[in-house]
Order: sequence, then C-alpha cells, then structure tokens
Amino acid sequence: MAAPRNERFAAEAAQAGFADWSALCCAAVEFELERVLPAGEGSLARLQSAMRYAVLGGGKRVRPLLAYAAGDLAGAERPVLDTVAASVELIHAYSLVHDDLPCMDDDVLRRGRPTVHVAYDEATALLVGDALHALAFEVLAGLGQPRPGIDAAFACPAATMVAELARAAGSFGMAGGQAIDLAAVGGTLDRAGIEEMHRRKTGAMLAVSVRLGWLAGHSVHVAPQDDLAALERYGAAIGLAFQVVDDILDVEGDAATLGKTAGKDQANGKPTYVSALGLEPARAFAAQLHAEALEALEPFGPAALRLRQVADLIVLRRS
Amino acid sequence: MAAPRNERFAAEAAQAGFADWSALCCAAVEFELERVLPAGEGSLARLQSAMRYAVLGGGKRVRPLLAYAAGDLAGAERPVLDTVAASVELIHAYSLVHDDLPCMDDDVLRRGRPTVHVAYDEATALLVGDALHALAFEVLAGLGQPRPGIDAAFACPAATMVAELARAAGSFGMAGGQAIDLAAVGGTLDRAGIEEMHRRKTGAMLAVSVRLGWLAGHSVHVAPQDDLAALERYGAAIGLAFQVVDDILDVEGDAATLGKTAGKDQANGKPTYVSALGLEPARAFAAQLHAEALEALEPFGPAALRLRQVADLIVLRRS
Repeated sequence: MAAPRNERFAAEAAQAGFADWSALCCAAVEFELERVLPAGEGSLARLQSAMRYAVLGGGKRVRPLLAYAAGDLAGAERPVLDTVAASVELIHAYSLVHDDLPCMDDDVLRRGRPTVHVAYDEATALLVGDALHALAFEVLAGLGQPRPGIDAAFACPAATMVAELARAAGSFGMAGGQAIDLAAVGGTLDRAGIEEMHRRKTGAMLAVSVRLGWLAGHSVHVAPQDDLAALERYGAAIGLAFQVVDDILDVEGDAATLGKTAGKDQANGKPTYVSALGLEPARAFAAQLHAEALEALEPFGPAALRLRQVADLIVLRRS
Repeated sequence: MAAPRNERFAAEAAQAGFADWSALCCAAVEFELERVLPAGEGSLARLQSAMRYAVLGGGKRVRPLLAYAAGDLAGAERPVLDTVAASVELIHAYSLVHDDLPCMDDDVLRRGRPTVHVAYDEATALLVGDALHALAFEVLAGLGQPRPGIDAAFACPAATMVAELARAAGSFGMAGGQAIDLAAVGGTLDRAGIEEMHRRKTGAMLAVSVRLGWLAGHSVHVAPQDDLAALERYGAAIGLAFQVVDDILDVEGDAATLGKTAGKDQANGKPTYVSALGLEPARAFAAQLHAEALEALEPFGPAALRLRQVADLIVLRRS
C-alpha cells in the first residue's frame, strides 16, 4: 500500500481540481521537454528544429499524466517525475513521426499541423524519430548517474526504468504492435488478434508510464511488489481502453476535433474494435475496461485520486 | 593508469595472437546477439526474423572489438563486455537498416546480401531499426538492474553508460552526422565541415564503444578520469581514421570486397576526404590519425596491446 509519506500528497491532491492538476502537469512536462530538446544551432539546426516541431506545442500528454499520477501516489519527487514524463513523451513523439511516414500510415496531418515529413522532408523525419528515441533514453538514464549526496543504492532505479521503457518501445511492445498492425491491413484479425495488437502498440507504453512514475518514488531495493501488481492491472486496462476509445473516435470524430485525419482506419481497411465488435459493443467494452482500471486502484484508497481521474479522462475524452 | 589486476589480462593478451583474440571476441558477441535477439514467433515472427537478418551473420564488428579491447585493459568481466559489445553493435545495425532506406541512401546491397527493405519491405525495415534501437538500451540497462549479491554502488555504472550511448547515437552524434551528410549531398563542405560530419556520424559511436568498454571495468565511483581522457583521445582519432579509410576504400574498393556498393559516395555527390583532400593527402591524414591514436595509448604501456591492434585493423583494413 502507499507509504505514509504519501498521505500528504494525497491530501494536497484532493484539494486541487483535476483540471488544475493536469494543466500544471502538462506545463511542467512542456517546460522539461523545452529544456532537454537541443536548441538547434549551426549544422544541426534543421534536424534539431524539426525535433522541437515534432514534440512541442501539442498533444494530449496522456503518458506524462499517467506518470505524474502514479508518481504522486508513490511520493516521487517532482523533478524526477518531470524527467520520467519527458522520456515517455519523447518515445511517443518519435513513434508518431515514424508512423506518419509514407511507408507507414502516410499521414499529412498531426495535431492540426503538417506532419514532420511534410513540413521538412522524409529523410529528416526518419532521423528526427531516431534522435528523439535516443534522447528519451539519455534523459531517463540521467536519473541514475552519480550525483553528489545521493547514494547509488538509494537513487531511483534508473537502469530498471530504462530497461522497462526500452522493452515497452521495442519489438515486444510498440514496434511489435505496429508490425502486427501493418500485417493486418486489408485482412482480418479476430478479437484476440486485435487485442494483442493494441496491447503492444499502445497499451505497453501507457502501462510503462504508470510503472515508471511509480518506480520514480522508490529506491532500487524497495518498490513494493503488491502495489506494482495492482498498478500493472490498472495500466493494462487503461492502456487497452485508450485504444478502444481511439477506434470509436476514429468513426465518430472529425478532423477538426481530432487534429488528425478522421475515418482513416476504416479507409485503410484496418481492423478495429468497432469493425470487429460493432460500435455499441465497443463502447460497452471501453466501459468494462474503465471499471477494471478503477477496481485495480481500490487498495490505494483516496490516494489514487489522480489515477482514477486520468482513467476518466482517457475513457471520456472526445478527441 | 591500469589497475594492478589488469596485469594478468595484459599477460594473457600478449600470449594470444590478434587474429585469435578478435575471432574469439567476434564469436562471443555473435553468441550474445543470438541470445538477446528474440526468436521470432507467432504474430511477431516477421518483424523479429527481420531483426535477426539485419544483425546476425556479417559485419566487421569493429565497435564490439573496441569495447572488448578497452574492457580487457580495464579488467572488466567478460560477460559484462559481451553485453556492452552487443549493445553498441545493435545501435550500429539499426543505423545501417535506416541508412539503406530509399529516403536515405537507397541502397540494395549490404554485407553482400539484399538490404532489409529489399529482403522484407520498407515499413518492416523502419520498424526493425526502431526495435533494434530500443533493444540496445534494454540490453545495456540490464547491467544495472538489481541482482542478488551485487551492491548497486559497486555495479558498473549502467545508467551512465546508457546516457553516453544514447548521446552518441542521438542528434549530437550519429543521427546529427547523418543529417549533415544529407544536407551536404551535391553541395560542398570544407575540410572542417567534413570532419564535423564524420566525428558525429561514425566517430561518436566508435569513441563511445571504447568508453563503455572501459567503464564496464569500473564501479560507479572510481573510473579514473586521466585514463578516460587518454582513451577519449584514442577514440576520437581512431573514430575519424575509420571514416577517412572508408572514404579511401569507397574509391579504391570493389563491391565484392566491400560487401556493399562501391563508388557510391562519388556517384551520389557526397563530399568525402578523398574529394576534399585528394587520395594521397587522405592516406597521409589516416596515417597521422593512426599515430595520434597510438600515442594516446602510451601511458597504458603493454596492457593496451589490443587497442593498438584494433587501431591497426581499422587503418590497414581492405574492406
């Protein structure tokens, strides 16, 4: 269960409204992303300005919010959480740049602006994704470098966090989900196949955002395994719910609200929860996953308020 | 200077010929790469088999050799060096897959075989690169995860190593060098511009291979800064020499020896040391960098034999 020192955070958390809390988190991660992204001078100006274009000034920052919510629950220090939040968002940003490339989804609109390969060029977009990918790990690993006054054994477990983030981004996680997605275009996937695709493609990164936030509040040796297991259930449920809702919004939404091309999945012949289950059963499935996520948080009591609110945000969002 | 326990390694090293030592290193890193690369089953079979295709069964393994040579000098444990060597080679392998893509160098031949996007498809090649990139960090970070019997403060500094590898791969290193390379096609770069391009594109990863090998032999708190500075000079010189020799071989070599398309840089209008300096001055520059690398090793005495031999290999190679 949450350590006693977290009660203070829980009390503070209960006093601020969710809108204020999430606005503060988004401002904090934006500031941190600004800080860690290179300014772009001299011979690297074009690449590094494209990196900033890809990351700054847009996005729902759902992964950072999950990290902050889990980290506040764990009593993590805010500067550490800023780093964690920036690293998960950098991975997400790189994946969007690569997904939008002509050889993948061939998309021209993202967050209401031209995609990176449209605004710059294809080769630059490829390198932007690669450089953001590396930057995510550089930033996260910075947490574990020796610092005066911090005993390595009591620092947060940065190496473990890097390994977990890498696994979530790699062939068993996000990249693997993308590969399944590619193979599925124009074909059929059964419900289990769609679930596997989404658990890897989107779910892994959302779940690891929760885990990293939680780990940020613990030293190398003492992350409580029961709590991690409960958060694992929360992360898995909310990670899948995110994608089910995405599939629903792809059918219901319009480009102005979404900031990206709507109806894209259907037009591309991609299997989705809506195409596999129908619209109403997809909505019911999202509600069921929402309930599962909230249930997993019960052991934490009121201290898990922010995680509950982020779950609500994910399921009830309109874009 | 090298710690006393390294004298044993130095004595052993002096007894084996370089061909035997490097063959053993190559076999060890091949075994480790085999081990860390996923087998490729079920829905991930295509992606993960393409990852294996991209990495296994070819390549000079220059970065692993640098890591082993520096690690043997530092008295690092061999299993730790296997991990370091695999991680730098995974980054290198991912970069080749992305560089060969149509939007970059558009190359069809690599290590004497069809490139990944030719053997598979372009989207798969993009994801293969991304997944290998993540795997490199997952593997390296594994060194720093809590293990029974190893105090975190005395484990090798995995988080520092991850941060250094990420920086070498990112926008200030390899990805940045690629961006400069792209911008230079068909144009002119002065000698300083070419040097900056190569120091980032190739030099950063070669130099970090040396640093990581060395760090693998030291606990978080005691990597001797003088030694690191000497190895830094070695790594910078040999990293640049590698590329000068590459430029020379691109003019002199043929596809059968190189295992890749020859004369490619010239045909693509890329500025090279040969185009900027002429063939003979480029040869003289390679010899000068070779001498600088050897000079940097002098403080280590005979213990640096392997690093000297890898420098010879890099400068005197024919492919």
